This record gives sequence, C-alpha cells and structure tokens, in this order.
Amino acid sequence: MANVKLAVIYYSSTGTNYQMAQWAEDAAKQEGADVKLVRVPELAPMEAIEQNPAWKEHYLATKDVVPEATIDDLDWADAVIFSVPTRFGNVPGQVKQFMDQAGGLWFQGKLVNKVVSAMTSAQNVHGGQEATLLNFYTTMFHWGAIIAAPGYTDDAVFASGGNPYGTSVSVDGEGNMKEEVEGGVRHQVKRTIDVASKFIN
Amino acid sequence: MANVKLAVIYYSSTGTNYQMAQWAEDAAKQEGADVKLVRVPELAPMEAIEQNPAWKEHYLATKDVVPEATIDDLDWADAVIFSVPTRFGNVPGQVKQFMDQAGGLWFQGKLVNKVVSAMTSAQNVHGGQEATLLNFYTTMFHWGAIIAAPGYTDDAVFASGGNPYGTSVSVDGEGNMKEEVEGGVRHQVKRTIDVASKFIN
Amino acid sequence: MANVKLAVIYYSSTGTNYQMAQWAEDAAKQEGADVKLVRVPELAPMEAIEQNPAWKEHYLATKDVVPEATIDDLDWADAVIFSVPTRFGNVPGQVKQFMDQAGGLWFQGKLVNKVVSAMTSAQNVHGGQEATLLNFYTTMFHWGAIIAAPGYTDDAVFASGGNPYGTSVSVDGEGNMKEEVEGGVRHQVKRTIDVASKFIN
Amino acid sequence: MANVKLAVIYYSSTGTNYQMAQWAEDAAKQEGADVKLVRVPELAPMEAIEQNPAWKEHYLATKDVVPEATIDDLDWADAVIFSVPTRFGNVPGQVKQFMDQAGGLWFQGKLVNKVVSAMTSAQNVHGGQEATLLNFYTTMFHWGAIIAAPGYTDDAVFASGGNPYGTSVSVDGEGNMKEEVEGGVRHQVKRTIDVASKFIN
Repeated sequence: MANVKLAVIYYSSTGTNYQMAQWAEDAAKQEGADVKLVRVPELAPMEAIEQNPAWKEHYLATKDVVPEATIDDLDWADAVIFSVPTRFGNVPGQVKQFMDQAGGLWFQGKLVNKVVSAMTSAQNVHGGQEATLLNFYTTMFHWGAIIAAPGYTDDAVFASGGNPYGTSVSVDGEGNMKEEVEGGVRHQVKRTIDVASKFIN
Repeated sequence: MANVKLAVIYYSSTGTNYQMAQWAEDAAKQEGADVKLVRVPELAPMEAIEQNPAWKEHYLATKDVVPEATIDDLDWADAVIFSVPTRFGNVPGQVKQFMDQAGGLWFQGKLVNKVVSAMTSAQNVHGGQEATLLNFYTTMFHWGAIIAAPGYTDDAVFASGGNPYGTSVSVDGEGNMKEEVEGGVRHQVKRTIDVASKFIN
Repeated sequence: MANVKLAVIYYSSTGTNYQMAQWAEDAAKQEGADVKLVRVPELAPMEAIEQNPAWKEHYLATKDVVPEATIDDLDWADAVIFSVPTRFGNVPGQVKQFMDQAGGLWFQGKLVNKVVSAMTSAQNVHGGQEATLLNFYTTMFHWGAIIAAPGYTDDAVFASGGNPYGTSVSVDGEGNMKEEVEGGVRHQVKRTIDVASKFIN
Repeated sequence: MANVKLAVIYYSSTGTNYQMAQWAEDAAKQEGADVKLVRVPELAPMEAIEQNPAWKEHYLATKDVVPEATIDDLDWADAVIFSVPTRFGNVPGQVKQFMDQAGGLWFQGKLVNKVVSAMTSAQNVHGGQEATLLNFYTTMFHWGAIIAAPGYTDDAVFASGGNPYGTSVSVDGEGNMKEEVEGGVRHQVKRTIDVASKFIN
C-alpha cells in the first residue's frame, strides 16, 4: 500500500495557523504519510507587516525557513490540509489568490478526488470560524475534491469545540490560543489520511 | 413617530430559545416597540416528545401559554426576531416548514423590507451556530427582507461570543446555557428596532 | 466486490424531482447498484395540496406507489442521492424534518462515511439552486458524510448548466423543465457510486 | 435631502464586470446619486495577464482610465455596489485582498450601516454565481453593513435570471454575456439607493 502524499498548506500572520499546521505535519508523519509543510505566499507589503510587531516577528521567523506553497504542491498531493485564519468570515486574500492560481490544474482535471480538509482560527469564539471553513469548501466542490471534514467522528472533535467542518480555535489579544485543539487537529489529519488512502490504492 | 411592530418568533424544544425570545420580548418593550411573542408550531408527534423529559416538560409548560406563530404575524410585523436552535447546521424542520408557508405573502410582495434578525443555540461551541444563521439569512434574501445582523456594533457582541450574524449560545447536557448572552440579545433587539424605525417613518 | 446500496430519496410537489429521482434510479441500476427509490413524507395538509391542481395530481399519483422514506433507508444505504426542490434558498420543511429525525443514527455514528450527493430544482434560473445544495451539504458535514458533488468531472456537467454542487434544473409555470439535465443526473449517480465503492470494499 | 454617495467598486479581467459596473454608474447618476466608479487593484503579474489576450486588452484599456479603488472610497460612500466575477464559487483573490484592508475602518466602526449590494458573473449558468454573492455577504455581516439584495422586488429581477442575491450573468467563451441583465443591474442600483437614503437623512 502506497503512502499518502499529504501537503499541509497554511497562511499565518502571527503564528496560530503555523502552530496548527505543525501539529498536522507531525500527526501526518506519525500516520506514515509523505508530508510537505508549505506556507501561502504573503501579499501584504513590508510596511503593512511592520505595523504589527507580532506579524513582523512571525514573518521574519518563517520566511526563509518554510518553503512557499506552489501549485505544484497541489499537483503532487493526494491529500491537503489547509490551515488559514478567518478574515471577515472568509479566507484571507492571500489564500484566495493562491487558490485562484489552480485554474490550470482544474482545467486539466488534476484536482478531482484530491482529499481536502481545512482548519481555521479567529479572535472571537464565533468570529467566522464556521463560515470560513464552509466558504472554503465551496471552492473544493468546484475542484471536484473530496472533503474529509471531521464531522463528529471522534471524541477529540467534541473536546476541541465541536466544529464538524474543521478544527477551529480562538486567539486572545496576545496571540494565545484560548482552547486546547491539538487533539482535534491530530484526529482531523488521521481522518483525512484514512479517506485519502481509499482513493490511492 | 409610530412604534415598531416587532414579532419574536421562536422554536424551542427544551427552553433555551424560549429564554432568549423572552429576553428579546422584554428588550423590545423597553425600546417602546409593540411586541408579539409567538412560538413556531411543533411537528413532532407526542410519542417523540415524550422520549425526552426536558422536551416534554417545556412543551407542556408553553403549549397553552404562548400563542402559535401564524403567517399573519409575519404580515403584521415591521420587524421580526427569530430564535431557533441549530439542527445539523441548519434551522429545524419545524421552522423551515413555518417559513415555507409564507409563499403567499412573498407572492404579494408583503415580505419586502421586513427587518429581520436571528439568534440560535447549539450543544457544541462550534455546533453550527454560524451556519444556521447564515442559512436562515439566505431565505431572508429571497423574501427581500433587510437583515439587521448585529455585526460588531456594540461591546455586548464581543461579550456574548462575538457572533456577527446573531447572538448564539451553547448549552450543556442539562440544558444550561454555557455563556452569558443576555446582553447580546438585548443589543441585537435594539439594533433591529433602530433599523426598522428607518423603514416605517 | 459487493454492490453499492444506494437510496434515492426525493421530495416532489409537482413531479420535477420525482423525474430526476427516477433518472437517478435507472442510472444506478445500470451501474449495478442495489437501489431503493423512496419519497420524503408530506407534511402539508390535504387542503393546502388541493389548492394546487398539479401538486394534488402528483401527490395522488405517487402516494400509494412510491414507498415513504424512513430513517431505516438511511441506515441501509451506502450512498444516498437526494433530489429536493429549493424553497427560499434552502431545503423544503418536509426534507429538513425528515433529516432531523436522523439524530439517533447520528448519535450511534452510523451516518459516518455515507456517500451523499444532491440535486435540486427551482422556478428561476438563479432561484436558489446553488444555495439549496450548499445548505444541504452543511448538514452532511454534521453527519460525517462524504459528499460526492459532481464538480466539473464530466462534459455532462457543463451541458446541464455547470452546477458543480449537484445537478439543478429550472421549471416553467407549467412545470416543464427548461433545461436538459438527464445526462447530468446520470453522471452524478455514476460518480456517487464510484466514490461509494471505495468505502465498502 | 442629501444625495446618496455611492461607490461602484468592481474587478474585471476581461470586461464583463466593468460593463455591469458602468451600467450601475449610469443608473446611479440617473437616480441623483454622487457616484464614483473605481476598480479593485490587480494582483496578477503582467506575465500572467499577457497569457490571456482578452485580459491583457481589458487591463491595458482601463488601467490608466479608471481610478484604483482605495479604502478611502469605502469610507466616503454611503452605499457600495460591488461587481466581481466568481472564482471557484467565491470572490477573486484580488477582491478579498482589497476587502481585508478595511480592517482599520472596521475597527473604528466606520463600516456600520454602509448599504451594500453585489453583482457577479461566471462562465457556467450555475458556475458559482449564488455562492459567490452569499460568501461576499458573509463579509458584509462582519462589517455591520446593511445588505440591499434585490430579492424579488421587481419584474427586472425575474427577467435577469431571478437571482435574489444580486444580478448575475454567464459569459460564453468569447466573453459575451449570454443573458440580458442590464435591467436587473439598474433595478438593483435603484433599490440600493432607496435603502441607503433611509440611513442618511
């Protein structure tokens, strides 16, 4: 049985989704997947980034460490975990811009049956987490992807806030996660790989 | 200046949304609105209700006390506050069945510019609260209604979980609300009346 | 390799979704699936049905011919095709009421990995077809189901209006379908069975 | 009575949404509004634009003619008409990136009660038009905006495809609109101004 090739693609301004992506990467390795962890290219100009010290710090700490996501990563992957913050109830512009570039792969039918699952964060408990994941999945239907949302398939989902669309967390003013969601992330990755394994062998 | 005529229309199996509806009724009266509090008719057979003691208790306690909602209540109202639980990320069948009966009013254009706002509850923190409100508002677009979602228009929104689509609460296994949302309900009602007042005078 | 057990569950007032369901049934049989065609129980009172001659005619023609859908049909099925009209951008009350009754199966985890796909109809070309399917799929995420949306996986999707969420049709005032969608229905069924076959063997 | 200040903000790669925006501009002027027509800044690199001759032609024809949209335009406006294509069932990355920059205005509460309405286009009849508008409106709830969706408030809505969320059109391979939607655009603008006038006087 071949290993699932899993890309963890994230966007993070101050580190929350990077942390979730790292948990996902670790969980995927433990499941025996071939894993790539890549970050969505930043679109904001440096003067905007510098106005937010936490953003600047995280940007500088990762920009030469984590490879930028490319469309080739999507082509390579059997399964993809996306981890992206909510911006006004939808994915950030950076993430949408990245996804829009998949038009060529889409046209060639190469996105069909990609197994995809997404995670998110927001500042408020009900700050658009559900909406962001659902809006993201709308795009997945266009791709012909198979969505491996967690549903309520494990106690870890309930323990992480019970979001059936994907693991979500809220973050306080200092950037600290308010809930314990690592278990939810790990379960979501395992479920994604389980579903993906049905499509590759 | 005429008073806003406001209908509070709720569905509740075990009492959470009845409580929220009562807060809404009280807040609306304090704002000087003419208020009706009505409950969406129950569709479940008595044998289903009886299998859940809390449901049975609430059903018996309200069925002869709170009038059933009718389509005439929608026709009468300038503004409507809906309070309904989430069922699998969407409104309960009872609520959708009630709303579907507004086809006649819709055909006559009588739902246009009704000012509407909705509240919800679920068992998990991210148990479909956002999704239920957004799915509900989709129907409001068909009606030509004006949606008075709270957005982030008051500190009470942040204090109640920060749901910009409408006040939402989660409920534990014993039916107790896990968060303090009364302030959010009261603000949402005030905002709804403020918006409605622009359409009636 | 076992046959996929596929339930075609539809609600139809004047026959459009019954026709789509019959195409789905036929396509599923040709693919070698074990198929059940069942209709969602009607909730409207007879006096409401009788006000619409086309509704009355279709109701009387099918009520003793097509079995009513039960929760056991969901339990039995590996895969489910839903065909339901849009009502104000969401599923009809009848359909939501039926789905709400799956709470017991949900609690037992028996809805996980059901492979599901949905079709719809409306009177206007953009009368809520997309919204209804997406709102329906929100519920599927709660179930832990696997959504086999058509995406753009076949030319038949483009020829049927290009709805990646599911086949949809618009209907004129006399109840006639305005577009040719049979090919889209047949492709959607085939794709659903293909996906389901990965989960049962 | 003061004039409504209305911004028409569009993104267009090959001209469809520019045409719709121009109709909106003209309709708004006829209604006596103060109007600005501005385009969302392009994010794609020139080498991507040049691969599509129609995109290149439209880009070069408008880049020095139509001013770029800025956040100040949002601040200035009482009402905003957005016209944006669908990209995989959601707004283009360019549009989301623009909207994300409104965080400062949002924080100051300056987006509250902006009256907003959106239009869209896609290549397929059901190619994400509804989804894109609904996903866009999710963001409007975060802003505390008032959404002036057309609903079914005029015969022009039915004649333009009956999309209650906003006027939408499909475009053939040569970039020609397949439906007549100018009347729908003009009605949507009039409705938006009518609603906005209630909030400024």
